[in-house]
Amino acid sequence: MKLITFKHAGISRVGAVVNEEVIDLHASYKAQLKSEGKIRVEQIAEAFVPADMTGLLQGGKESMELAKQAIDYALTNKEDNGYKLVYSYNEVKVEAPVPKPGKIFAVGHNYREHILEMGRELPSNPVLFAKFGNTVIGPQDDIPFHPVSEQLDYEAEFAFVIGKRAKNVSEEDALDYVAGYAVANDVTYRDIQRRTLQWLQGKTVDGSLPMGPWMVTSDEIADPQTLEMVLTVNGEERQRTNTANQVFTVKHLVSFLSNLATLEPGDIVITGTPGGVIQAMEPQVWLKDGDVVRVEIDQVGVLENTVRTVKGE
Amino acid sequence: MKLITFKHAGISRVGAVVNEEVIDLHASYKAQLKSEGKIRVEQIAEAFVPADMTGLLQGGKESMELAKQAIDYALTNKEDNGYKLVYSYNEVKVEAPVPKPGKIFAVGHNYREHILEMGRELPSNPVLFAKFGNTVIGPQDDIPFHPVSEQLDYEAEFAFVIGKRAKNVSEEDALDYVAGYAVANDVTYRDIQRRTLQWLQGKTVDGSLPMGPWMVTSDEIADPQTLEMVLTVNGEERQRTNTANQVFTVKHLVSFLSNLATLEPGDIVITGTPGGVIQAMEPQVWLKDGDVVRVEIDQVGVLENTVRTVKGE
Repeated sequence: MKLITFKHAGISRVGAVVNEEVIDLHASYKAQLKSEGKIRVEQIAEAFVPADMTGLLQGGKESMELAKQAIDYALTNKEDNGYKLVYSYNEVKVEAPVPKPGKIFAVGHNYREHILEMGRELPSNPVLFAKFGNTVIGPQDDIPFHPVSEQLDYEAEFAFVIGKRAKNVSEEDALDYVAGYAVANDVTYRDIQRRTLQWLQGKTVDGSLPMGPWMVTSDEIADPQTLEMVLTVNGEERQRTNTANQVFTVKHLVSFLSNLATLEPGDIVITGTPGGVIQAMEPQVWLKDGDVVRVEIDQVGVLENTVRTVKGE
Repeated sequence: MKLITFKHAGISRVGAVVNEEVIDLHASYKAQLKSEGKIRVEQIAEAFVPADMTGLLQGGKESMELAKQAIDYALTNKEDNGYKLVYSYNEVKVEAPVPKPGKIFAVGHNYREHILEMGRELPSNPVLFAKFGNTVIGPQDDIPFHPVSEQLDYEAEFAFVIGKRAKNVSEEDALDYVAGYAVANDVTYRDIQRRTLQWLQGKTVDGSLPMGPWMVTSDEIADPQTLEMVLTVNGEERQRTNTANQVFTVKHLVSFLSNLATLEPGDIVITGTPGGVIQAMEPQVWLKDGDVVRVEIDQVGVLENTVRTVKGE
């Protein structure tokens, strides 16, 4: 499934994208329950296929299976007593797939060529830093360029979403804990990142983590370490790599992180960026108002956002 | 007020500590509303004095005023139709005042003597790093010593809690955005902290942020930059400072952070630790099972936790 969070008539819900349509999973599951003669449909749907992504992920594989059944139901019954179960993709606002992740772990220096580009050695442990939930924006949002810096940079990132509480998980079992994958852009204010040894302040500026458009569930990605990733700015290619070049794989990261911290459904890991960031260019032509940054990952999707200067701050 | 989160009969609620008693604020406010002849007491109390701390903080000064009235009501009416409004402090489990903060910002190198002890220069910008919500434990919990490292260290910290959404706040207005203050211990796995340049991995291990026992509301602390802080291990003094020695004050931090990220009610900032950590001792005698770490901050409170090795991981 391609799972999204979308807004229609001011209300956020979880949807599945099928071709050019969006299925409202919570509403569809309720309609299906009603058609089966169930009575406590509100409560059952709230328990198993709720309208928010973190809730749905907390339901684990059971909820994912029920969501799939709800899709089948909705594709043959597009309305429930005049209430829409299926929308055209163009008539909804698509938000970040997980709008309020509990934790966002970011990995630095995880592609061989980027590490060399930055003049560093291959690390023996993943370099980990944080972004907070205030950074998350969706695929149809602009990247806000706050006037706190002039050095706005992009970082194409392959993200994964935790689907099951994980503590001390082995690499062998690790992919069972991954609900799905998404495209992300770890937007970074370079001078702020560099002004102390700790990167957090340049990484957690409001709106600096576009993600989406959807989360592809992990059953649809046979091997997360085979995916081509390309970033362009205004159509010009800047970054290109393949997740095969990652020093630390998704499996390794789940296991490594879960040995430090308990991971929860809806937690996000962005797995690092390859070479080609502006920071390493000569001259450094930073992102500016109107620039269109596009990240495409094979089998996962395309995330495209426009940079917009925030006025009046 | 001294606000706590406490558990009784398996349910978490927000309380105020008055002498040796704990007032259940949500229940007391409901009882008060009933006594005033109000009808929708459940809904009104849920809206204005909910049973969780983040919700209460979201209500801002209005909710804090109502909470104070509820305390007055409860102290003269200790029961509501046989349902207790007031508990003895000893009969409840006290948890961290904000059990699920949205963000936890930590400041490194914020006391002059600690900076010198670590051989560093005074910074021109605060050094900021993150801890995630999985680290938060309460004043009656043990500090879990996970067998991922042998280098367990303490860091006495003066914490503040955001009480109002803050974006681009000036230093002049900054203290209006602080709901209160608490004692914290930024428990750190030193070798894990040091194995990459980014500290996050040694800082966000499960259970590594004891906090409490309560949050003292900001109206009771005339000047947050005048508070003596002392840490002892098994009664032996290891750290002593005064918040007057902070390089970056509470005011400055609120303003600085709010210019990067929108701060939300319930967000926590731990403001740095002074000299005297084990990392800087010779020899380095790391914390071990059974050690009692006690942090006291003048006018704020005493936080005491015992280190317990986690078996079977």
